[in-house]
Amino acid sequence: MKISVVRDILEANERIAQQNRELFDRNNLLVLNLMSSPGAGKTSLLERTIDALKNHISMGIIEGDIQSSRDAERIAQKGVPTVQINTGGACHLDGNMIRDTFEEFDFKALDLLVVENVGNLVCPAEFKVGEDFKVMILSVTEGDDKPAKYPLMFHESKVLLINKIDLLPYVDCSVGKIENESRKINPDQEIFRISCKTGEGLEEWYEWVKKRLKNKRIKSQ
Amino acid sequence: MKISVVRDILEANERIAQQNRELFDRNNLLVLNLMSSPGAGKTSLLERTIDALKNHISMGIIEGDIQSSRDAERIAQKGVPTVQINTGGACHLDGNMIRDTFEEFDFKALDLLVVENVGNLVCPAEFKVGEDFKVMILSVTEGDDKPAKYPLMFHESKVLLINKIDLLPYVDCSVGKIENESRKINPDQEIFRISCKTGEGLEEWYEWVKKRLKNKRIKSQ
Repeated sequence: MKISVVRDILEANERIAQQNRELFDRNNLLVLNLMSSPGAGKTSLLERTIDALKNHISMGIIEGDIQSSRDAERIAQKGVPTVQINTGGACHLDGNMIRDTFEEFDFKALDLLVVENVGNLVCPAEFKVGEDFKVMILSVTEGDDKPAKYPLMFHESKVLLINKIDLLPYVDCSVGKIENESRKINPDQEIFRISCKTGEGLEEWYEWVKKRLKNKRIKSQ
Repeated sequence: MKISVVRDILEANERIAQQNRELFDRNNLLVLNLMSSPGAGKTSLLERTIDALKNHISMGIIEGDIQSSRDAERIAQKGVPTVQINTGGACHLDGNMIRDTFEEFDFKALDLLVVENVGNLVCPAEFKVGEDFKVMILSVTEGDDKPAKYPLMFHESKVLLINKIDLLPYVDCSVGKIENESRKINPDQEIFRISCKTGEGLEEWYEWVKKRLKNKRIKSQ
């Protein structure tokens, strides 16, 4: 019985997420759903990405948290439109929550909307919000056994960013093992090794975003 | 409507967890529900704790994972009774799942049962499994903003273990800030700074477990 309830919720969410996606497409807006465990570096990646791209493109950010607006405050300092969603206990964002932010944005003026999901390697993978792509971050401090243990997240994520590689000398973690195990689950996944602290590897991530922006504009013409 | 469904699930779970707890109490069994983000060190803490205590007390372990049995294999090598629960997508353990393991254990012969929950800083805090105490681990690599962002987990956890303190020279994290913010949410929480890699701080954790074992036996006599 519990499973059927969850399925009803998932089906209802799929319909709303599809409606969101259609609105985003009509506005030629690339939407990324950014997911990770707590503290893997989602907000740090956003800060870096805004700094690198904001002179070239127009970005908006949705910040999802159980409560508090600390991440939104960090991001708003970068001068981009930022909307906070407090889920009030829910462990993931869903299509309805994203729809509730629409009147806060001028989507016609934006090129890229990034949704920073609640820090959780499980539930966010199940709930579409209307995104073009799911992007996940794994920190090397979490260990190299995570693809096998949280396969849905790795399966659903078009991009895997392996973060905090500056800490590799101090932790027991094989990045090669993460890559191999994740590609077993998701052979087409793009994987980048990065450090949001030192900036290493981030250029390739920015190039991936720029390429997707270009594809989105062409697709929507 | 969604909220009412969640409440029904939570209420049903409370009843089952209470029944589990009564069974554990009848067997003078101390039960700890161990929670953290993915990769914060739950299994490493268990390995250390088993090595330190297994000559003095009789332990059993329940390993919760979405899928895979890697952690259970690590723990079973230590020679303690270990049962794997694969939640098949669910992001937390609940009372029913724990009840399903009962025929695998001889509770009369055990002093301590540790339930290693699914790696998730959100949902496990909402679902009792019949435990005496919730115990959480936070790794310093997750950052010092986590109590404010995931307050329910910190509120519900009788013990906070701040792990990976050997990495403090390499990360931007104030352990004092974690402690202050967590105590604001949960003034009676016991907090230990530990490293499951070097062993630092673990003696105090073992002493806490031994004290609780003693209390449990006295209480149940």
